[in-house]
Amino acid sequence: MVRIGIIGAAGLSGRELLYLLGSHDEASVELLTSSKYQGKKVNDVFPELTGYNQVFQPNDIDVTGCDLVFLAIPNQASLERVPNLLEQGVRVIDLSGAFRLRDKEVFSKFYKLSHSAPELLEEAVFGLPEYFKSEITTARLVANPGCYATGALLGLLPLGELLGKLDRSPIIDAKSGVSGAGGRVEDDVTIFVSVNENFKAYKVFSHQHQPEIQQYLQDLSPYSSDVAGEIILTPHLLPLSRGILSTIYLHFREPVTSSDILQRFSTFAESQEFVHFLEEGDLPDLRMTVHSNRCMIGAETDQSGQNCVIVSSIDNLVKGASGQAIQNMNLMFGFDEKQGLL
Amino acid sequence: MVRIGIIGAAGLSGRELLYLLGSHDEASVELLTSSKYQGKKVNDVFPELTGYNQVFQPNDIDVTGCDLVFLAIPNQASLERVPNLLEQGVRVIDLSGAFRLRDKEVFSKFYKLSHSAPELLEEAVFGLPEYFKSEITTARLVANPGCYATGALLGLLPLGELLGKLDRSPIIDAKSGVSGAGGRVEDDVTIFVSVNENFKAYKVFSHQHQPEIQQYLQDLSPYSSDVAGEIILTPHLLPLSRGILSTIYLHFREPVTSSDILQRFSTFAESQEFVHFLEEGDLPDLRMTVHSNRCMIGAETDQSGQNCVIVSSIDNLVKGASGQAIQNMNLMFGFDEKQGLL
Amino acid sequence: MVRIGIIGAAGLSGRELLYLLGSHDEASVELLTSSKYQGKKVNDVFPELTGYNQVFQPNDIDVTGCDLVFLAIPNQASLERVPNLLEQGVRVIDLSGAFRLRDKEVFSKFYKLSHSAPELLEEAVFGLPEYFKSEITTARLVANPGCYATGALLGLLPLGELLGKLDRSPIIDAKSGVSGAGGRVEDDVTIFVSVNENFKAYKVFSHQHQPEIQQYLQDLSPYSSDVAGEIILTPHLLPLSRGILSTIYLHFREPVTSSDILQRFSTFAESQEFVHFLEEGDLPDLRMTVHSNRCMIGAETDQSGQNCVIVSSIDNLVKGASGQAIQNMNLMFGFDEKQGLL
Amino acid sequence: MVRIGIIGAAGLSGRELLYLLGSHDEASVELLTSSKYQGKKVNDVFPELTGYNQVFQPNDIDVTGCDLVFLAIPNQASLERVPNLLEQGVRVIDLSGAFRLRDKEVFSKFYKLSHSAPELLEEAVFGLPEYFKSEITTARLVANPGCYATGALLGLLPLGELLGKLDRSPIIDAKSGVSGAGGRVEDDVTIFVSVNENFKAYKVFSHQHQPEIQQYLQDLSPYSSDVAGEIILTPHLLPLSRGILSTIYLHFREPVTSSDILQRFSTFAESQEFVHFLEEGDLPDLRMTVHSNRCMIGAETDQSGQNCVIVSSIDNLVKGASGQAIQNMNLMFGFDEKQGLL
Repeated sequence: MVRIGIIGAAGLSGRELLYLLGSHDEASVELLTSSKYQGKKVNDVFPELTGYNQVFQPNDIDVTGCDLVFLAIPNQASLERVPNLLEQGVRVIDLSGAFRLRDKEVFSKFYKLSHSAPELLEEAVFGLPEYFKSEITTARLVANPGCYATGALLGLLPLGELLGKLDRSPIIDAKSGVSGAGGRVEDDVTIFVSVNENFKAYKVFSHQHQPEIQQYLQDLSPYSSDVAGEIILTPHLLPLSRGILSTIYLHFREPVTSSDILQRFSTFAESQEFVHFLEEGDLPDLRMTVHSNRCMIGAETDQSGQNCVIVSSIDNLVKGASGQAIQNMNLMFGFDEKQGLL
Repeated sequence: MVRIGIIGAAGLSGRELLYLLGSHDEASVELLTSSKYQGKKVNDVFPELTGYNQVFQPNDIDVTGCDLVFLAIPNQASLERVPNLLEQGVRVIDLSGAFRLRDKEVFSKFYKLSHSAPELLEEAVFGLPEYFKSEITTARLVANPGCYATGALLGLLPLGELLGKLDRSPIIDAKSGVSGAGGRVEDDVTIFVSVNENFKAYKVFSHQHQPEIQQYLQDLSPYSSDVAGEIILTPHLLPLSRGILSTIYLHFREPVTSSDILQRFSTFAESQEFVHFLEEGDLPDLRMTVHSNRCMIGAETDQSGQNCVIVSSIDNLVKGASGQAIQNMNLMFGFDEKQGLL
Repeated sequence: MVRIGIIGAAGLSGRELLYLLGSHDEASVELLTSSKYQGKKVNDVFPELTGYNQVFQPNDIDVTGCDLVFLAIPNQASLERVPNLLEQGVRVIDLSGAFRLRDKEVFSKFYKLSHSAPELLEEAVFGLPEYFKSEITTARLVANPGCYATGALLGLLPLGELLGKLDRSPIIDAKSGVSGAGGRVEDDVTIFVSVNENFKAYKVFSHQHQPEIQQYLQDLSPYSSDVAGEIILTPHLLPLSRGILSTIYLHFREPVTSSDILQRFSTFAESQEFVHFLEEGDLPDLRMTVHSNRCMIGAETDQSGQNCVIVSSIDNLVKGASGQAIQNMNLMFGFDEKQGLL
Repeated sequence: MVRIGIIGAAGLSGRELLYLLGSHDEASVELLTSSKYQGKKVNDVFPELTGYNQVFQPNDIDVTGCDLVFLAIPNQASLERVPNLLEQGVRVIDLSGAFRLRDKEVFSKFYKLSHSAPELLEEAVFGLPEYFKSEITTARLVANPGCYATGALLGLLPLGELLGKLDRSPIIDAKSGVSGAGGRVEDDVTIFVSVNENFKAYKVFSHQHQPEIQQYLQDLSPYSSDVAGEIILTPHLLPLSRGILSTIYLHFREPVTSSDILQRFSTFAESQEFVHFLEEGDLPDLRMTVHSNRCMIGAETDQSGQNCVIVSSIDNLVKGASGQAIQNMNLMFGFDEKQGLL
């Protein structure tokens, strides 16, 4: 039984961790914190979560006795906390963006923060289990991927060699439910009357998940931004609670057969617990993945064979955040990868 | 052309006033204020409102030159502002709850505020045009009714003499869209992920519109709380932007014919611009009134004739707030009651 | 391992059964039918349901080999099918309303159908496990309760002796998500543009769950309709997918202390796996029960002690239909009552 | 006063025509039809529409006496009806897609219909007033544009000469509310439980508005599909009632300054009643155009100046259908272009 601490357990990702860990057979939440609710009982704040008799502790509590700590706090707070936790010998899964990018200059540009622990950037393992399974197994620090990055990378990387044939910028037109855009932050952006019956793009050409997708696409495939151009990511805000659907536009130097695309995705999906590829002619919707750790993918090509549209669907709070974090925990502690996940 | 000032023009009611006044032929908005947006142009804050070239002024601006001021600010702020405005000779329509109740003790109990201008409570005219038309015409200070009160009173008062036959507490089970529950207030209650796919009751036995309904029901009908008991109001929060549907339960001492009920409502509706009564067997939904100043009403009785269910539908931002305020303005300045309203 | 057949597995309740049984350790779905999708693979119709390799069979398929059949088909179809299934020696859980009422005249009046198997009405066990646990254990035929009836009865019956002190009709103002009002039926009532941003009452004084609540309230408590009047049920349609919130109005002949009410609900809840009662001052919302088999209840009394408002929340597709059906299955086959349920 | 007939007045576009014409000072609806509701009174079907005392007539009624007929019926029905109406000397605004494309082969391919009146394709005027004002003035037959086409063309055409510098396929990632995807059609696609909390792409590489955009982009600008490739249109279904937001991706052969883009859109917008261009850095959301005939546009370029994202927002039922039809009527009959429109 692994002993868990959750720093920031009352935000959207933290609450989802509590919900999912409630049905995990080998994890025991020993300690949970919240600056907003410290001193309150979990059941009073979240009556729908049964089985937690604890009280929210302050964020800066000592985590001695925990084997693993999940950080579900803002980037700056993660930056400050991680070095101490590692020194204490605790393993860490960080759900913030603090340790995902290798280049601290790029980090500063997109996060508007200077990086106070750059010496850990090399060590941190990017927690996308489909591509970093063995590194995750032994990691001290896992940087859990961003939600847009997860949906985009799983819709792109299985194409493998084909990504070397791209001759234009991959375009990722992504649409997220409100919880993927920071739903508990109390600002105009997320209040009901601003979001309901509304839809909009935001952070065009400037979202912080763009360099994350860019970096791992370059690391893990023959895609080259020099040849094809940098990826373009346009996030949008959907009037619904959960889920990210990414519509990805690719253009190949020469025609690609749809059976080649189909074959690569199918082969990849067969080897993975949580990735599913739909048959030719079918595209996923959000409902297929909401409340599960699945990523579902479909693809269509046009008559020329040079244009391809890929659609990827995930639940931003599960595969895009807390579910993936638990998948990472399962690998780190030798449990079944699917333990506690749907 | 009446010269208008709007204090608090960027809240939900204030913005609705701007929207509606944009197509009013005889009103000119001379001055508008917002503490949050002061110094910003209306078009930058609300690009969907065309035709306003002004800049938001601070709330405490001098209103000299205005014939009429709408107050769309919190109760305490209205309490403080109204006496000065009246002294200046400006007529006022107050959309807050500050001057709706006659009894300052009841006000204190439900609003948790002490009343600093009780001398105006007798003079203030309750701005329900269907019942106070002539008083409104000459009023200096109109207290625009609460949204729940408007829906409930128009669903009850047309019954006239029948209200003297009630032998049980009228029960008003009311359901409001988010804008009726303070949609721009940035708290957990109104953020998207709390409201979406959710529904709940709030302020059971304690909502501040209960005494407002109670007072005018007693003033304007033979209903007596001594005989029938005080009215019971239960507000609920719907996951939608606009509209209040009130389901009203009545029990009569002796059977009442549905044709009697039908007749009373129909006769009343015929004499009113904005009240519609549906034929027997039909009940209104919210869609019938959203974005209009209408109140639509339907009624059903059971086999015994003693139980009656009345359903009333309004748009809380129009007939329940800003539309009704403009209807009051039309009466105060001798315009067609329907000018600028749908 | 109990061998399951599901007749009508592609409707909303049928699909929910498939979803829930997917994580049940002791049930194996051997056979599933759909008139609409017969011949299609489950995964093609519901890609989000993993683990079903079967093809939908025609509804009239022979169920030999099944230990238990769930019927998730219309009332008339259940009426016709149940006698044959019982003759074959198969146990049945019927999710329709065909066998819930004891009186075939009342059935005809509310369901507009004549009852073709009245001899089974006495034998059928009402599948509300909180009150009929031992009868369910040995039942051949379980009539799974209606969704409105489940929410209302669990909000009323725990009051026990206090129900003998009612002197007015209990009023149940119930609000359901679209799936509780027949969401897959392709008519105007359930298309998106009719429901979205809308709200309305329906079947006032005539909903078929009214006699179901009436009957079991009389059977299981000292409530008497002669003294207090028949219960009044008003269903409403919420613009959301799942959940029923019932606001229940009670009036007692003499004052009742809130601690008495609290005590009765708390004691009851402690003895039940799926019923939770909130502390004084708290009322449940829909989010607390969606996707779980829980019923959550809260209550408030007014100053007089004679008026009481009870709010009960369930997921209409889980505790109000398929989850409760699995709870009944667990009792019928000796499994842990919570097996496969959250 | 122009005498109007509306064939198909009870569908979504037809009902919106009724709503909008209700406040038009110079149009009188003489005749309205519906196959579904023939014989019923308008007010019984749409109680929220006041001022219509008529009864729905059968679709094949004689329109003698009308000056103008709006057709809001399916493509096949329009194809059959238009020739007769023109022979009768009635002017026609057709809201279907029957007469928008010039090439009957392309029509057949995308609409899966053979064109029975090809002789009218040359005469029909494409009802995009911003580009065909003078032709519309004298037209006998106006083909009202498709909703996706309106949003896309107004987001592209103002770029003028810059469209000759495109070197890649323009990509239009469009997101529509349910009414834009055929909201009253009673199929699974539009029922509430399929759409709510869901999102998906549909008709990838095959939507019938793609050739409409392609044709007028080529006609009215230096864009060449030989150089840049055919436009790519991906429609998506949003869980909301009204509105289309189009995110348009352009790539220029050489860098373009954002001030050049800004200048072209601003100049165009100044000359148009219903087109608005936001300041640099601002992008429109859906709320800015819902219930109005406006099209609002914003644009951003990346650092290289070669990639540009344009966002265009319209209400699919107003500027994308019935509002634009009334704008066309205003031009055809010499009224103020804004009469009856917001």
